[in-house]
Amino acid sequence: MKILIVNGPNLNFLGKREPDIYGNNTLEDINVLLEKESAKLSKDLMLEFFQSNSEGEIVSKIQAAFGNYDGILINPAAYTHTSVAIRDALLSTGIPTVEVHISNIFKREEFRHKSFVSGVSVGVVSGFGINSYVLGLKGLFDTLTN
Amino acid sequence: MKILIVNGPNLNFLGKREPDIYGNNTLEDINVLLEKESAKLSKDLMLEFFQSNSEGEIVSKIQAAFGNYDGILINPAAYTHTSVAIRDALLSTGIPTVEVHISNIFKREEFRHKSFVSGVSVGVVSGFGINSYVLGLKGLFDTLTN
Amino acid sequence: MKILIVNGPNLNFLGKREPDIYGNNTLEDINVLLEKESAKLSKDLMLEFFQSNSEGEIVSKIQAAFGNYDGILINPAAYTHTSVAIRDALLSTGIPTVEVHISNIFKREEFRHKSFVSGVSVGVVSGFGINSYVLGLKGLFDTLTN
Amino acid sequence: MKILIVNGPNLNFLGKREPDIYGNNTLEDINVLLEKESAKLSKDLMLEFFQSNSEGEIVSKIQAAFGNYDGILINPAAYTHTSVAIRDALLSTGIPTVEVHISNIFKREEFRHKSFVSGVSVGVVSGFGINSYVLGLKGLFDTLTN
Amino acid sequence: MKILIVNGPNLNFLGKREPDIYGNNTLEDINVLLEKESAKLSKDLMLEFFQSNSEGEIVSKIQAAFGNYDGILINPAAYTHTSVAIRDALLSTGIPTVEVHISNIFKREEFRHKSFVSGVSVGVVSGFGINSYVLGLKGLFDTLTN
Amino acid sequence: MKILIVNGPNLNFLGKREPDIYGNNTLEDINVLLEKESAKLSKDLMLEFFQSNSEGEIVSKIQAAFGNYDGILINPAAYTHTSVAIRDALLSTGIPTVEVHISNIFKREEFRHKSFVSGVSVGVVSGFGINSYVLGLKGLFDTLTN
Amino acid sequence: MKILIVNGPNLNFLGKREPDIYGNNTLEDINVLLEKESAKLSKDLMLEFFQSNSEGEIVSKIQAAFGNYDGILINPAAYTHTSVAIRDALLSTGIPTVEVHISNIFKREEFRHKSFVSGVSVGVVSGFGINSYVLGLKGLFDTLTN
Amino acid sequence: MKILIVNGPNLNFLGKREPDIYGNNTLEDINVLLEKESAKLSKDLMLEFFQSNSEGEIVSKIQAAFGNYDGILINPAAYTHTSVAIRDALLSTGIPTVEVHISNIFKREEFRHKSFVSGVSVGVVSGFGINSYVLGLKGLFDTLTN
Amino acid sequence: MKILIVNGPNLNFLGKREPDIYGNNTLEDINVLLEKESAKLSKDLMLEFFQSNSEGEIVSKIQAAFGNYDGILINPAAYTHTSVAIRDALLSTGIPTVEVHISNIFKREEFRHKSFVSGVSVGVVSGFGINSYVLGLKGLFDTLTN
Amino acid sequence: MKILIVNGPNLNFLGKREPDIYGNNTLEDINVLLEKESAKLSKDLMLEFFQSNSEGEIVSKIQAAFGNYDGILINPAAYTHTSVAIRDALLSTGIPTVEVHISNIFKREEFRHKSFVSGVSVGVVSGFGINSYVLGLKGLFDTLTN
Amino acid sequence: MKILIVNGPNLNFLGKREPDIYGNNTLEDINVLLEKESAKLSKDLMLEFFQSNSEGEIVSKIQAAFGNYDGILINPAAYTHTSVAIRDALLSTGIPTVEVHISNIFKREEFRHKSFVSGVSVGVVSGFGINSYVLGLKGLFDTLTN
Amino acid sequence: MKILIVNGPNLNFLGKREPDIYGNNTLEDINVLLEKESAKLSKDLMLEFFQSNSEGEIVSKIQAAFGNYDGILINPAAYTHTSVAIRDALLSTGIPTVEVHISNIFKREEFRHKSFVSGVSVGVVSGFGINSYVLGLKGLFDTLTN
Repeated sequence: MKILIVNGPNLNFLGKREPDIYGNNTLEDINVLLEKESAKLSKDLMLEFFQSNSEGEIVSKIQAAFGNYDGILINPAAYTHTSVAIRDALLSTGIPTVEVHISNIFKREEFRHKSFVSGVSVGVVSGFGINSYVLGLKGLFDTLTN
Repeated sequence: MKILIVNGPNLNFLGKREPDIYGNNTLEDINVLLEKESAKLSKDLMLEFFQSNSEGEIVSKIQAAFGNYDGILINPAAYTHTSVAIRDALLSTGIPTVEVHISNIFKREEFRHKSFVSGVSVGVVSGFGINSYVLGLKGLFDTLTN
Repeated sequence: MKILIVNGPNLNFLGKREPDIYGNNTLEDINVLLEKESAKLSKDLMLEFFQSNSEGEIVSKIQAAFGNYDGILINPAAYTHTSVAIRDALLSTGIPTVEVHISNIFKREEFRHKSFVSGVSVGVVSGFGINSYVLGLKGLFDTLTN
Repeated sequence: MKILIVNGPNLNFLGKREPDIYGNNTLEDINVLLEKESAKLSKDLMLEFFQSNSEGEIVSKIQAAFGNYDGILINPAAYTHTSVAIRDALLSTGIPTVEVHISNIFKREEFRHKSFVSGVSVGVVSGFGINSYVLGLKGLFDTLTN
Repeated sequence: MKILIVNGPNLNFLGKREPDIYGNNTLEDINVLLEKESAKLSKDLMLEFFQSNSEGEIVSKIQAAFGNYDGILINPAAYTHTSVAIRDALLSTGIPTVEVHISNIFKREEFRHKSFVSGVSVGVVSGFGINSYVLGLKGLFDTLTN
Repeated sequence: MKILIVNGPNLNFLGKREPDIYGNNTLEDINVLLEKESAKLSKDLMLEFFQSNSEGEIVSKIQAAFGNYDGILINPAAYTHTSVAIRDALLSTGIPTVEVHISNIFKREEFRHKSFVSGVSVGVVSGFGINSYVLGLKGLFDTLTN
Repeated sequence: MKILIVNGPNLNFLGKREPDIYGNNTLEDINVLLEKESAKLSKDLMLEFFQSNSEGEIVSKIQAAFGNYDGILINPAAYTHTSVAIRDALLSTGIPTVEVHISNIFKREEFRHKSFVSGVSVGVVSGFGINSYVLGLKGLFDTLTN
Repeated sequence: MKILIVNGPNLNFLGKREPDIYGNNTLEDINVLLEKESAKLSKDLMLEFFQSNSEGEIVSKIQAAFGNYDGILINPAAYTHTSVAIRDALLSTGIPTVEVHISNIFKREEFRHKSFVSGVSVGVVSGFGINSYVLGLKGLFDTLTN
Repeated sequence: MKILIVNGPNLNFLGKREPDIYGNNTLEDINVLLEKESAKLSKDLMLEFFQSNSEGEIVSKIQAAFGNYDGILINPAAYTHTSVAIRDALLSTGIPTVEVHISNIFKREEFRHKSFVSGVSVGVVSGFGINSYVLGLKGLFDTLTN
Repeated sequence: MKILIVNGPNLNFLGKREPDIYGNNTLEDINVLLEKESAKLSKDLMLEFFQSNSEGEIVSKIQAAFGNYDGILINPAAYTHTSVAIRDALLSTGIPTVEVHISNIFKREEFRHKSFVSGVSVGVVSGFGINSYVLGLKGLFDTLTN
Repeated sequence: MKILIVNGPNLNFLGKREPDIYGNNTLEDINVLLEKESAKLSKDLMLEFFQSNSEGEIVSKIQAAFGNYDGILINPAAYTHTSVAIRDALLSTGIPTVEVHISNIFKREEFRHKSFVSGVSVGVVSGFGINSYVLGLKGLFDTLTN
Repeated sequence: MKILIVNGPNLNFLGKREPDIYGNNTLEDINVLLEKESAKLSKDLMLEFFQSNSEGEIVSKIQAAFGNYDGILINPAAYTHTSVAIRDALLSTGIPTVEVHISNIFKREEFRHKSFVSGVSVGVVSGFGINSYVLGLKGLFDTLTN
């Protein structure tokens, strides 16, 4: 089983500033954490990590996952609220997807309450800090194996 | 460590109808699942289960949790979208709370996209079927122990 | 055939005040009228009457009707406009339901024009005074027997 | 006592298509049904039937009813949602009117939830199939004779 | 100089009911009044009177005025608020038009505050009872002769 | 009979610029025109002219008209769209008022379509250039003498 | 003279948390304060205190006040913004009511700016801390005795 | 194969005025153009032309097409934005329909951006002048023959 | 302790008209009442009275109060709903302010439900007739002395 | 004559999934079809094909077309609804553009009904499957050669 | 060259309170700063300073500038968001105007995001503290001299 | 001191078309102008120029500025209105930023009035043509050196 981890814009910058919203961990720390969780879930589970600040590259990566990955774990970051293209990419590949957010987006600005991705995801995990990724991975894995 | 599991209106009816939205499991099945997960997380973790169709009783139960519980795992069901009273109860006790939903509320009617509870919760888990509870419990436990 | 008659908040107060909106009849008068109509429709038709000011009790009563009643005739009164919980209870039991209103809600305040219950009802009867109940019962009976 | 039955656009087409929304009955079947119900209600009750696809003709017919009819039973169909002219015709004649709909308009597109006619009607009956007419006639007759 | 007087739906019913809103005068009274005013304005001014309950007929009449009339005085009544077709007819003939209303539409229901016709008229006169026609005719005449 | 003519902000500037919207006439020209019309209407009609750029002064002038004037002809200009205070002044004196506008406000920016004054006026005249004042005065005079 | 003091959800929790919004006083302190003020106002004034987290119980209590109380002083708390049922109960009993709030609800979240109760109250007092109750009681007493 | 060409209000006036929006061609020119295109598409293709300013007549014509025509090419003109009746007529006959507009409606007033017809059409062609009809006919023909 | 009493537009006209909304008392009666209440509250309390129809003068008066007054009691009347300038004046002086209204603004037109002043006030008193001032003064005094 | 064919995000994925919405054809099939149509229209017509998932690359390609292409045929896909940048690129090059959509966007989610591109296009073709491209090309060619 | 500097309500209070929003400088400091900048720009540049809390006085001052000043630098303060009268004054004089704000209005309350003045200004400078005036003066000077 | 100049989509096209909105200058001209201004401001000030049509590249460039630049001068062009990602990039680097626009965006389409960038900028300069950059640079420099 292969799962693609997609991180949207500015998540490569994690841990450098705004620790009150996003904590002190870097994206690298999240990847390590996910590998650990992956090992716990199944030795046959393989993860690939991808981050991009470009909406187009994220769309292309999701397309490339078609036929190669069993699931997608995505934190679309800012594109959550503005990208119909990513929504369409997920729709057109049909790969089961879980959406995660580090912060609780419902506690932030009004424009962050709307997600174009939630409507095409299996489920959403929001607000647990970097632990959102771990919970999301577990939720996706359980969905794929049930 | 003690965690209160609160279930809102109609969740006592789970498993009787609408399996396409809510699945075949009953609330009892969820409780069993949560006890199993609890045992895995820590032997010192104790769960109490509460379900009510009454907004007022849920408010009172949340108040009663003050000083007695370390966390609340809540599926407010229909009251998610209409109850300022439950929001205020959570605010006034200040107990760390995680909100869960069986179905992905963002795939349903427009009026189910708004939650009065999300804004006062640590985090939200939505759409993983009864597994949402397990993920939510784990997320809450991790939050409380970190 | 058994039909449950559900009356929402303040309908127990009918006939005491505001006769220009609700007329002079009491809830008891309505019940008598419905029993008379029931006798006309079929001698095998049995009615049970229920009124509550509590949203939660109405939800519980609807659930309790599952497997025991063939239809529900409901005047949700104020909860018409605010209760997702009653909507969900009707949805989850799947019992054919008819919604009635004494006054024509479309002639009153803007916030009374929206109904959470209409979307899950067979039909709606509004504005005929207490006769709305009689018409609604007949409509429900005809639906159930056709 | 004379009652005018007014049917709006496309109701002359009833029974030809879309049986899942409107059933298999034709407008003629409805008229027969109404005559039967009329006979039951009172031998002094006379019905006249009118259907038109033209908003203007419906307005003129309602005006012509002034002084000649005691009540109007109307299914304004599509004009329900767009015609201020029909609303004004009903207002200016002042003839007691009952609005009926075959389908439950609250289960359909958003733009069908608003009615320009409800606010000037005695009452509304919606969702009982062709039986809506029968219930509406009875409701109107009872209103006129009480 | 020829001016076409166009009256929309229900204005043929004027004087029969709702005197508190529309007064006791009939459309015939208005015509007499307008002829009198016309004579005062100029002996070369000719008026033609037209009333219809049909949006389509009003559109056709406006088109027929092209090349034959120098101005249009219109009370679109209910179609004021709903007819793009009448707006387009006025636009496509380009005949200078004045819009009049007997009642002050800004004191009535919200949906009567919007006019599709005002944006393509020279001017608007509203609220002076049948005198609105006289003022509107004078205003139109002055516009055409200046 | 005495009528107060009230002109709002920037109308003292009339004729200096923007002739395509407001024409070339000055406020003085309007006053002359109104005096001429007044003489035609009745030799007992007296006009007083008032212009101010200050909302507060207009309010005070309207109050001062109480008991001294039989009618008010007002062009509230920019305050049309923003002043509740002028609306309240007209309401509290109860003097019959006619609202006029030189340009057709319905052809201009969206925010000019709403008037706080229309709802408390006898009638409105808009779009006839300076002739709007003459028509408005005539309409007001006719209202007061009928 | 008898006045019923009604407190809505979470007010039984007053003084336990969120002192920056609600202060340190408990509901008991408020009652003591009100008794003191009552004594000052009139020795014939009797107060009864009621608090409930349940919307339905509050509705029932208001109904029970009919014929037994001369006035109601209510802090509907969270139900202020969501309960049509409490509004209807106040409407149907017709007992003069004053609405009070400890915090200034206009300084808080947008959804707290709307009140279903204000429209059926004599008056509203908001933002004076527990003193809002004292001012509200005085205002209600003065209204009842004038 | 038979296709009905339906033209809405004011299209009979085409070519007389507003050439900057609608061009210089008349409706007759369009018909000639369509006959030419029809001949090119198939010698078995027959066209019938219909224009009306009346919403009701258009509804009736669409109904009459049922069983007699294989497709409808419609330019609903002003009724595009206001007619639920035409939408319902198309829905109830179920004849494949293509919607065309001479001008690009998305470059015009806001109220012209909404179409009641688009949602029940196969496709929409807008903005190509009278060529929109030719493209629409071709698109409809291709749809019917594939 | 010095308190400035500020009254907005048209309050100088109180008692002359509209007694059903504002009662029969004049502003002078209110001042007398406030002096009486002031004497009861403390002999060291001094009141100054100010009324203006001008937004700018009210702004200037509030500024002039800076350093000279301990509190402001304001009835902004019509400016409640439109004046950001008065809001800013109160913000920039920072003097504790109480907002009062004679009528219950929540029972009136929609546009009177919004207040620019409430968000910068200690508290609001609305609907008690002229007694609103007395309650507001007492509330302000208690706030300043606690 | 040279025409640039621009395809937006996910159109490279055409034919792989969601055949009920987009059909079974691939983008390559569309290109072949367009070349065939091009040959029919004129042997001097040259097409260039471009697809990108990146908003920025589409903007750059449109700019590069300036001075080199006579027309643009664009299916902006998801960027239709979100890209002001593509709108601005079309505006700034001023190359005549036709917008096409495979599916009828007016039958899909609300957010797909708004297009930033339509307002700067010659015309729009929507809903004819891949035939939309052929019709659009023909429409663009006719526009350019007339 | 002469430039009029207009300051709106409460700016005369600058430097007394709220230093976190507006800084510690007074209006006098700004004037000194502007004189210094003026000297740098051109010795032929003359500035006049004007501040008023009254909307009407600002309107009159702008009118008085007509024919006497080459440009206006305005900080409309609170009137930015509410004054159509000032917009109209600027429109009717046609003097090139630059709008400045000390604070960044887009970081403050929602109602401060809308400006009636921006739409009639050459340009806007917002958020640079008192330096906004200097930048605005320079921008206006450059505009007038190019 | 180093400042990064960021230009968004289509600004590389400046000077080629639409001179009435954007003038005749090219981006190169702006850079030359900025270098000149920079030299005037301080010889220690270094500028770097960056333009991209890609949202993702702009995000990456802003991140790369972290630790290397003291300020950012940005004209986000079309992304002003749609990009949460650029807002988040500016937020996460925390580098003081000034937003500039060549045209006055408040005079253009409604959708250009909203900026995702203004809320995270020091200040905004809009409408001075290419001079907006010079003013913005000066404003940013002054902010950084004070």
